[in-house]
Amino acid sequence: MNYLEALSRRYSVKKFNNQLIPQETLNNILESGKLSASSLGLQPYKIVIVGSEEMKQKLIPAFYNPSQISTCSHLIVIISKKTIEEHYIRGYFNHISEVRDTPLEELDPFKKSISQHITQKTPEEIFNWAEKQSYIVLANLMYAAAIENIDSCPMEGFRQDVIEEILNINSETEKVTVTLALGYRSEEDNFQHMKKVRKPNEKLFKFI
Amino acid sequence: MNYLEALSRRYSVKKFNNQLIPQETLNNILESGKLSASSLGLQPYKIVIVGSEEMKQKLIPAFYNPSQISTCSHLIVIISKKTIEEHYIRGYFNHISEVRDTPLEELDPFKKSISQHITQKTPEEIFNWAEKQSYIVLANLMYAAAIENIDSCPMEGFRQDVIEEILNINSETEKVTVTLALGYRSEEDNFQHMKKVRKPNEKLFKFI
Repeated sequence: MNYLEALSRRYSVKKFNNQLIPQETLNNILESGKLSASSLGLQPYKIVIVGSEEMKQKLIPAFYNPSQISTCSHLIVIISKKTIEEHYIRGYFNHISEVRDTPLEELDPFKKSISQHITQKTPEEIFNWAEKQSYIVLANLMYAAAIENIDSCPMEGFRQDVIEEILNINSETEKVTVTLALGYRSEEDNFQHMKKVRKPNEKLFKFI
Repeated sequence: MNYLEALSRRYSVKKFNNQLIPQETLNNILESGKLSASSLGLQPYKIVIVGSEEMKQKLIPAFYNPSQISTCSHLIVIISKKTIEEHYIRGYFNHISEVRDTPLEELDPFKKSISQHITQKTPEEIFNWAEKQSYIVLANLMYAAAIENIDSCPMEGFRQDVIEEILNINSETEKVTVTLALGYRSEEDNFQHMKKVRKPNEKLFKFI
């Protein structure tokens, strides 16, 4: 199956069949999330992987459509940072210095330009920017899942406060941005038989 | 090359080599953008593909780092809708009805729920939501490009007003969200030799 066939087969599953994804496959999908590009390389997010039955049960009331949560293999919760603190940037540069075996001083101009860039933004701009980076992760996870023949359903319809309480998230510094259920489609899910609807090329693309 | 190798090979290219991407490969990458999932299936965006040398030259002054624009094969500009008008939703449902050969009346409950969902949001919420969907497109394009062994560079650093003027965008209803240069890395681009920096698993993932 090539990647376009994989994407064409993908749809937003309403009901999974409770089958578990093999650990190695899940790891590959997560690796795809880890390799996501992010603005300035800052990766302003965290990825929570809910695999325990108990936690999934607890989370069900947070979702407007609970059928995916009760039948999926794993529920992924992507959490965005609301603020980029000075110490976060420092940690990032310490890490670059380590991985690339480069003295911190050499990285200083880049560090200064990032700090300046970040401090110029309003808290709301920072947060919107962080959420957009999280959507690259979401897309990468869905894409890898499709290639691995794993079904998925991205979900924005949830009660953020409920998830944040259950997952013990500090809502001053972080926010649940989007969730993704992973698993195998149930044979009973009729949505799999519906034709995919996408704007025709002439409405979506403009070549200049 | 499997998909994880392709993602590992990917980096944000600073300088391309001016070589053109074959039309078929470009079409595959764009198809991946077209197949992107979007919230409620609304695809609140448009994708402009800048291939002409003249247009690329015109756009150079809009970018803080112009080297990608002057050396890439194609520049993709993703434009988000700022508003979701009633007629847009109507058009969407007419299209679903056509593609799935389903009477409009049958789709009415779904249509009403979408209209209601949209009207509940503030203009700013609509726009932030639309931009996030555009980032799924961005990620899908980068992902497909990586698999096709095409290099890319996502760019958020540009003067929106300048691009909007050149591309003749109605800034009341649409906004340039993000851009993506596609092409082949130049041998002179030293960034390709740098080790990829990603948060270690224990800082990125939490399994529960």
